[in-house]
Amino acid sequence: MNPLRVALAGLGTVGGGTVRLLRENAALIEARAGCPVALVAVSARDRAKARGLDLGGAEWADDARQLAQRPDVDVVVELIGGAEGAARELCEKALGNGKAVVTANKALLAAHGTKLAQIAEEKGAALMFEAAVGGGIPVIKTLREALAGNAISSVRGILNGTCNYILTRMSREGLPFEEVLADAQRLGYAEVDPVADVDGFDAANKLVILTALAFGVKPDLASVTTEGLRRISPLDFRFAQELDCRIKLLGVARWTDKGIEQRVEPCLVPVSSSLAFVDDVLNAILIEGDAVGPLTLIGRGAGSAATASAVVGDIVDLARCAAPKPWGRPIDSFVEGFVLQSENRGGSWYIRLNVTDRPGVLADIAGVLRDEAISIETLLQHGRAKAHESVPLIIVTHQTNEAALRRAMEKLGRLEAVWEEPFSLRIENET
Amino acid sequence: MNPLRVALAGLGTVGGGTVRLLRENAALIEARAGCPVALVAVSARDRAKARGLDLGGAEWADDARQLAQRPDVDVVVELIGGAEGAARELCEKALGNGKAVVTANKALLAAHGTKLAQIAEEKGAALMFEAAVGGGIPVIKTLREALAGNAISSVRGILNGTCNYILTRMSREGLPFEEVLADAQRLGYAEVDPVADVDGFDAANKLVILTALAFGVKPDLASVTTEGLRRISPLDFRFAQELDCRIKLLGVARWTDKGIEQRVEPCLVPVSSSLAFVDDVLNAILIEGDAVGPLTLIGRGAGSAATASAVVGDIVDLARCAAPKPWGRPIDSFVEGFVLQSENRGGSWYIRLNVTDRPGVLADIAGVLRDEAISIETLLQHGRAKAHESVPLIIVTHQTNEAALRRAMEKLGRLEAVWEEPFSLRIENET
Repeated sequence: MNPLRVALAGLGTVGGGTVRLLRENAALIEARAGCPVALVAVSARDRAKARGLDLGGAEWADDARQLAQRPDVDVVVELIGGAEGAARELCEKALGNGKAVVTANKALLAAHGTKLAQIAEEKGAALMFEAAVGGGIPVIKTLREALAGNAISSVRGILNGTCNYILTRMSREGLPFEEVLADAQRLGYAEVDPVADVDGFDAANKLVILTALAFGVKPDLASVTTEGLRRISPLDFRFAQELDCRIKLLGVARWTDKGIEQRVEPCLVPVSSSLAFVDDVLNAILIEGDAVGPLTLIGRGAGSAATASAVVGDIVDLARCAAPKPWGRPIDSFVEGFVLQSENRGGSWYIRLNVTDRPGVLADIAGVLRDEAISIETLLQHGRAKAHESVPLIIVTHQTNEAALRRAMEKLGRLEAVWEEPFSLRIENET
Repeated sequence: MNPLRVALAGLGTVGGGTVRLLRENAALIEARAGCPVALVAVSARDRAKARGLDLGGAEWADDARQLAQRPDVDVVVELIGGAEGAARELCEKALGNGKAVVTANKALLAAHGTKLAQIAEEKGAALMFEAAVGGGIPVIKTLREALAGNAISSVRGILNGTCNYILTRMSREGLPFEEVLADAQRLGYAEVDPVADVDGFDAANKLVILTALAFGVKPDLASVTTEGLRRISPLDFRFAQELDCRIKLLGVARWTDKGIEQRVEPCLVPVSSSLAFVDDVLNAILIEGDAVGPLTLIGRGAGSAATASAVVGDIVDLARCAAPKPWGRPIDSFVEGFVLQSENRGGSWYIRLNVTDRPGVLADIAGVLRDEAISIETLLQHGRAKAHESVPLIIVTHQTNEAALRRAMEKLGRLEAVWEEPFSLRIENET
């Protein structure tokens, strides 16, 4: 049986894990693929670096882009990362040469997923990216293949393990964000430059990929409203608990007849949700389809071996010639810009205000909300402030309009009795 | 584009749901399949029965087996059910004629999965059965394709929605089994003949299918230890709560170097498990792979639309010519009878005894356990019995040998102070 000939670019965490997995489970993989998987060439930035990897007889390429040209390569595995540069060029060239591409590169797919799919479909080449979202969780395969009979109405997910780790520790230990972040960086759970994770951009990249698969719209980062973790305070976890909720950074994509809503933000999640107790570095995705109903997938969203599991799953599909179209349907059928405008967006919110504790303050606050037609479901205030101190006041709204909420937040911030910028968290009910 | 021509046998809950889904989401399904899916022929027991289904131009076959012969059929969808009779003959004949088969028939696959795979592989025909386990949950696809790079170490699942519904209500309402069963039957959540569900046989059928896919052993019902719900008492839920556990009927398949353990039984599941809060009619499967780590899938395990979602997913894979081998690897590579013998099986248990409350009883019980080298982790007894009454005594064992546990249970039952047959529940820790 002829082997499937693989070239691999990038020998970092995921690349190293992929090489190890292909070696360690070679017999199993051959049985499932129906042929051996041969690593014929590799490329990485620094050839001299000690990686402890058995690269077998794989040839070394100094420039990853060379891998796209080799006549002895069937599949190019791109694990370099980044939306531009070598990763993008390698994928475009490999697909252009009719080679299958497997990638874990969410930034690349979010930015250039349409163009890559066009090249792939034109050349009849496969483009596989199970590892780009949710690490080892087969969410791409599920949306692209298993749920092919479903009209999907929403996809919600805990898509970033670093954020989930930080929120879990803040919740358990009552510590402030900066302190937990610093510790997470020390332990290797967060990058030295944490912006992509804690400000929600990594999750946003993943969300647009899921949105494209679920709804048949072109991946478009600009359609996502993104907010990160920085403003969450230990107080919020205490009040969340009182409200029978937990705080999770969610990526949410929701279909409505007026457009698609895509957002990444920390939310209050009721404890009854299947996402509420997904803790630490785990990821989870909750998909709603018209036939399947709610479907939840939970697993390791990152890490060397888990992500390699997804890469190898894609490689085995390629060996079996079982790759679907990159986005499950012809890319030319995909629409652009069907975005739900903010005046059509709704929700209910948790609002935390820091207020002067004196008569009349609540009347002012209630007046602002009344003027925006926002009605109050719950009001929480514990203890009383001493003179010249403030006290936290929590308001939970009924279902309301998002634009009205934003206006009210701004007005509340201008009230004399409100001490700092008001803070809000959406309450994510799964309906 | 030529349509994929489908014949469907069985127009019950799942068959009706499949017809409806193929109609309602026809455009979506065509886009994902790359061609229209045409229902060319159907068969069911009673042609005259009103089903409210739009069968379009589909021809009627009085005998389902005729569908296997039609030259105008590419795919036979078998939704008749049952391990023998028309279902079996239809599948064997269709595969023998080189037609693809899609089935939801777990009993058939558990009993004849090897033979069917042999015919399929010999004829190069596809055999797909996503709908046979977990309804709309893509567990077959996950094990067969997504986790192809993994050596699987265990599969644990809540595989029967009826049992989970009964246990959830017993837990919430404190009612005895018979009462909840009767109510479930009245509400349509349990069959008039509940044996297949509540005695664990349905879950056992599903478990052997997962075992075959996970470990490469031939499906073999005789290898499964099966116990149902009948002996669980409302008392057990109260003590389970005290032990931070919930009671779930689990199907568990575990790989060990000495053999594979396969069992279906009610278990105490720690509340920290991802299976603990999967309630009502939901199903869940927790897979452990060496690369992916723990992966949990939760969704609707039964019902018309959810199961149809799985059937249609298989049909779309067939349209894309993306079907793997029936069991993911060549059936001839599968081993037989690698069963973990009971003397090599271990675990820890919850034991409930009903005992006379007098000095010396505990010494007798402790003596029995000591003689079998079983050590006690926790002992619970609340309240005292009045004269001529008994009191429940709960023992939680440390890790011990299963054969020893069974012997001890028998000896305990013979003690004069033990009033009724001792009852035990395994404590399922996910390690």
